[in-house]
Amino acid sequence: MSFDILQDLIKDKKNPTVAGLDPRIEYVPAHIQKESFSSHGETLAGAADAIWKFNKGLIDALYDVVPAVKPQAAYYENMGWRGMEVMERTMQYAKEKGLYVIADIKRGDIGSTATAYAEGWLGTTKVGQNECTAFDADCVTLNGYMGSDAINPFLDVCVAKGKSAFVLAKTSNPSSVELQDMVAGDRVVYTVMGDLIERWGRDTAGKYGYQALGAVVGATHPSVLKELRRRLEHTFFLVPGYGAQGGTAEDVQHAFDQFGRGAIINASRSIMCAWKKTGRDGLDYQEAARAAAEQMRDELKQYITIL
Amino acid sequence: MSFDILQDLIKDKKNPTVAGLDPRIEYVPAHIQKESFSSHGETLAGAADAIWKFNKGLIDALYDVVPAVKPQAAYYENMGWRGMEVMERTMQYAKEKGLYVIADIKRGDIGSTATAYAEGWLGTTKVGQNECTAFDADCVTLNGYMGSDAINPFLDVCVAKGKSAFVLAKTSNPSSVELQDMVAGDRVVYTVMGDLIERWGRDTAGKYGYQALGAVVGATHPSVLKELRRRLEHTFFLVPGYGAQGGTAEDVQHAFDQFGRGAIINASRSIMCAWKKTGRDGLDYQEAARAAAEQMRDELKQYITIL
Repeated sequence: MSFDILQDLIKDKKNPTVAGLDPRIEYVPAHIQKESFSSHGETLAGAADAIWKFNKGLIDALYDVVPAVKPQAAYYENMGWRGMEVMERTMQYAKEKGLYVIADIKRGDIGSTATAYAEGWLGTTKVGQNECTAFDADCVTLNGYMGSDAINPFLDVCVAKGKSAFVLAKTSNPSSVELQDMVAGDRVVYTVMGDLIERWGRDTAGKYGYQALGAVVGATHPSVLKELRRRLEHTFFLVPGYGAQGGTAEDVQHAFDQFGRGAIINASRSIMCAWKKTGRDGLDYQEAARAAAEQMRDELKQYITIL
Repeated sequence: MSFDILQDLIKDKKNPTVAGLDPRIEYVPAHIQKESFSSHGETLAGAADAIWKFNKGLIDALYDVVPAVKPQAAYYENMGWRGMEVMERTMQYAKEKGLYVIADIKRGDIGSTATAYAEGWLGTTKVGQNECTAFDADCVTLNGYMGSDAINPFLDVCVAKGKSAFVLAKTSNPSSVELQDMVAGDRVVYTVMGDLIERWGRDTAGKYGYQALGAVVGATHPSVLKELRRRLEHTFFLVPGYGAQGGTAEDVQHAFDQFGRGAIINASRSIMCAWKKTGRDGLDYQEAARAAAEQMRDELKQYITIL
């Protein structure tokens, strides 16, 4: 299983893009804000309601263009539990629409704590005689600073339920150099982490050869993408940093294998906020998001052919 | 400000202990479970209700013995948004009781995402004309793998609001060696991270000389505690791994400076689950938790005198 489901969806839609659902209230068109605030006031409940409507509209506009969505937990946690309720509802709705849901949580903790995170985000939590599902994502992002203790509880759930996880290797932000580019022995830290990911995930490969544990590698470092693609044969890549952060289709082609497989490219604001460039006050946010996603798909198509 | 408030509370209570609130449903005594399940069924809502009652009882029993509590987000996220609502309520209640609240979230993300996390956990989220608070902790834990981009948005809120944060340096778990003990140049990775933490936090020291950015250093490595205490003069330590994981009072004495300041030691299960050792079916969970916290305080007192 592992990343097979995602790779099949990418092939069906001929599009290796994941749409980030990282909504801030100011990304939500005024007509939606107005409606929610008139019912709930300018409160966290009001913001959560507006963001739910915005997300639902985006999913309705995108579900036959992109194979996956990636809600980023920070943009829900900043509305407290009300935001988490919207995150849960958004993920559920996206799955109903056939989308692969990557919960971008970058969790990293140990032992029984990692087990609890894995229960909440991928698996089930036992309550009395019942196995209850909470967020129930298809995939999560993780931070491996604490080593395999932080990863194995997730990997166990991935294997049991045919799910998957991405661990941070080389991130797209400028300060990623501070730790990740330190030389450690004959490797740099992000290579050490990449090798750990490939090792931790061994024996979990699916039909395309990719293990249940993938890696996050930023679009802003094409030479690193090329190096790690060659080095980590069985590791699926999640590539952030396309567009706003400077990564191009030419750059990210190096994330893919010879069959155009093994990677998915994230775009968030360029899709969510596409309406801000059309001059129509967000009344067209769905059409604008869809057009932006189609444009990105077509840009990628110039460099990547998915077999 | 920074860690001044916490250090003052530690001095008042003569106790450098933080009680971890990491509740699993099986840690909750049967009489509480029964009551919640009879109202809500064996569901996430039922578990969340039971855990809220358990937490409230623990806080009532502990608030004049310990200076701080540390709810671990994983044990709330595994109940979905219902768990997050209980986490929010627990934190609010602990603050009303005068406790310093450390939200153990180990978040680490970049730019606008880190800003959103900081809004949700330490600061406020702007909705229309209102600044709304969500989780509103006094302090959080963070992961610095992505570098200063992941830390600065939190640090800005810490400085503005007199709050603080701990960044992972050397964690208490066995697999922490996999990355953290790699030699990078003339240092190991956890020292690199420690030096980064000390540097990122510069110019934010409070009256005791500690900056707003602390470090997590596990109790299971006394020699590392000693080394980092000497090296990172302005960095307050959060020390997990006491008790169940093997750290002793003798070990953790090295986390403190010559005035018995600059560190707080975490205990979770030894306090929360103390009732499991008394043979009274958890009817005495409050007394048992309080006795365990007092015992730990007295153990630490043998090695640490707080001036």
